[in-house]
Amino acid sequence: MLLPRLSPLLRSATATAQFQLASKCLAGRRWQRPYSVATEPTLPGLDSSKLTVTKTTTPKDILSSDELVFGRTFTDHMLSIEWTAADGWLAPRITPYQNLSLDPATCVFHYAFECFEGMKAYKDPNGKIRLFRPDKNMERMNKSTARIALPQFDGNALIDLISKFVKLDERFIPSTRGYSLYIRPTMIGTQRTLGVGPPGSALLYVIASPVGPYYPTGFKAISLQATDYAVRAWPGGVGDKKLGANYAPCIVPQMTAARKGFHQNLWLFGEEEYVTEVGTMNFFVAIKDKETGQKELITAPLDGTILEGVTRDSVLSLARERLIPEGWKVSERKCTMKEIASASEEGRLLEVFGAGTAAVVSPVRNIGWRDRMIDCGLKEGEEAGELAARMKDWIEGIQYGDESHPWALTI
Amino acid sequence: MLLPRLSPLLRSATATAQFQLASKCLAGRRWQRPYSVATEPTLPGLDSSKLTVTKTTTPKDILSSDELVFGRTFTDHMLSIEWTAADGWLAPRITPYQNLSLDPATCVFHYAFECFEGMKAYKDPNGKIRLFRPDKNMERMNKSTARIALPQFDGNALIDLISKFVKLDERFIPSTRGYSLYIRPTMIGTQRTLGVGPPGSALLYVIASPVGPYYPTGFKAISLQATDYAVRAWPGGVGDKKLGANYAPCIVPQMTAARKGFHQNLWLFGEEEYVTEVGTMNFFVAIKDKETGQKELITAPLDGTILEGVTRDSVLSLARERLIPEGWKVSERKCTMKEIASASEEGRLLEVFGAGTAAVVSPVRNIGWRDRMIDCGLKEGEEAGELAARMKDWIEGIQYGDESHPWALTI
Repeated sequence: MLLPRLSPLLRSATATAQFQLASKCLAGRRWQRPYSVATEPTLPGLDSSKLTVTKTTTPKDILSSDELVFGRTFTDHMLSIEWTAADGWLAPRITPYQNLSLDPATCVFHYAFECFEGMKAYKDPNGKIRLFRPDKNMERMNKSTARIALPQFDGNALIDLISKFVKLDERFIPSTRGYSLYIRPTMIGTQRTLGVGPPGSALLYVIASPVGPYYPTGFKAISLQATDYAVRAWPGGVGDKKLGANYAPCIVPQMTAARKGFHQNLWLFGEEEYVTEVGTMNFFVAIKDKETGQKELITAPLDGTILEGVTRDSVLSLARERLIPEGWKVSERKCTMKEIASASEEGRLLEVFGAGTAAVVSPVRNIGWRDRMIDCGLKEGEEAGELAARMKDWIEGIQYGDESHPWALTI
Repeated sequence: MLLPRLSPLLRSATATAQFQLASKCLAGRRWQRPYSVATEPTLPGLDSSKLTVTKTTTPKDILSSDELVFGRTFTDHMLSIEWTAADGWLAPRITPYQNLSLDPATCVFHYAFECFEGMKAYKDPNGKIRLFRPDKNMERMNKSTARIALPQFDGNALIDLISKFVKLDERFIPSTRGYSLYIRPTMIGTQRTLGVGPPGSALLYVIASPVGPYYPTGFKAISLQATDYAVRAWPGGVGDKKLGANYAPCIVPQMTAARKGFHQNLWLFGEEEYVTEVGTMNFFVAIKDKETGQKELITAPLDGTILEGVTRDSVLSLARERLIPEGWKVSERKCTMKEIASASEEGRLLEVFGAGTAAVVSPVRNIGWRDRMIDCGLKEGEEAGELAARMKDWIEGIQYGDESHPWALTI
């Protein structure tokens, strides 16, 4: 059992009492913020040099490739760092993978003080371990924690700690192309009181799961249900942060789409039926202009209603670098279902794909919209468009080290 | 440590695999739903007769009234019931209050599969224990669980189990007026895999905390910041369910309001600036009609963007029964900040209050809106309007058993 070494109760209670007291001041009277949600500058930050390592005495068996199911089995160890409002970040620990022991009043169970990241470690042809743009994950995770009053941390320090953890569990990283080690940094609020306020303590932990390719036998194009009855995100909400809160509400719509034979929801927004995201991926559509015939790759803009995907950013960057010279236009702009349907009808819809860490790119065959089925341009028997296939090759080429690129961090 | 007796891994993994397999079917091909999110009719439902009780061997001290802080200390025991997709509801257990031991991959930590209820037990003048409208909490909790693919349960069975739990820990219920035992039923998803899908296992648990009156020295009117930059809920979202997901995102706006000297946010919606909720309470406003002079008690309608508060429903019911005969109009309708501001300017704003389980009613002194401060009708030095005071008396009269009423369940 991983038992918190400190009793956060008294500290947390004090912080909450301060907050409640402060909340009781009269309107119009200015008062000091009781404490910053970020670590106070005077409090210890995340310090990777303080890491302690306790190795497992019961190493696990390595599963064969065909036994791997996404996020079901984990490596021998885990990385944990506790934070308290009074003491800042405590010494990081690598321990055997083990259960968390938490009071049933802990705020993560009641008020969803939780956020996470998804990233991968790859084995390159020289047997070196590579991370893909981990700085982007750190940056996004700090945005997530700030939004729900969890503490900030030094991203470079966490990358350093994750590197040490991944190296210790290196034997779990499959060396076959398409396989990788999925890394899940998670932060939860651990204050054990029911008052609704900023958590006075938190736990940042990282676990890792060896995973196989999303499409083991090559691409499989998916079908989407354009969904308007359920709304994933909205302006002023938290849909652009990687919070647990954004996920549980998506399952029933996903099951509803699945019952109708679709693989995923295509989340629409507003009366205009703007396309935003697909399932838990960002959405890309390639259209040929009606007048000029110019090809345009379009994805929704970062307006607060879509996740700032690392793969999304990578697709956009590569498209700007490698497709614009070929004559493409690359746009972050709003796009409606109507625009996609018209392009499909007129034979101008080149292809549609989702983009995310799990699948890299996920080609789309068709979209069920109202009472119609929109064809997304794949020929019969074809499972991916040319663009999706090229993007996957480009990104995997960087991830697995075929190509030397600043996005790859060799650890 | 409360260790799950069953290993949900295999069952959960099977359920997820089924779901993933099903999700991979081609569009247009009809297929069976892999399993219902509700307990299958053939699976065991929640059965209070199967309860086992393990009493604590280290009973806690009872705190004096002035030491009680909301949700900080808990009774000797807790109630737990596990559910699995394969076996339905397992035998309920009352055990000593203890930590939960959960795998770090458990879905509650990553995707916010969690919902809760807040209810109270009161001691009446005869020393009997009373619950207030527990059927409403059960009904709402089942709506919450259904929305995030957690299992349904028999509300009467859970009321029966909660009654047994509360009776066992009866000595923690303060007998002083204004004091009560706050009861927190909670359900979390316990599947320990990272795939985003319906949890194959769950834990329903109930803990209880003795609490004092929200306003120990009588009412204290609060100040609200009309908040439009952050949006709590949206049509098609989950703001009408009591999910953990709705709470963490409210803390930073609450701290922002507090830094400006306000106690709570008043959540606005849309360009029209409709008032929806205040902090974690429902919102009521009493206005005198410009033409007829008729008094109207207004609260936002249940349009999916506000919580279906039990206290809200109680205030509405009592207002319909006891205020309409006095000439009042009682309305569930949309109301804008502009309407409230106009009424205030014209001396027609009678009073404003929040309503919720914690405070019953919470009078509002003023609302900061844009660059103005809207006066809510309280005289200087006055901490509650007549209506808020009457409502509190009426509801507490039923809760503490001064008045015999079908809303009170003596256990």
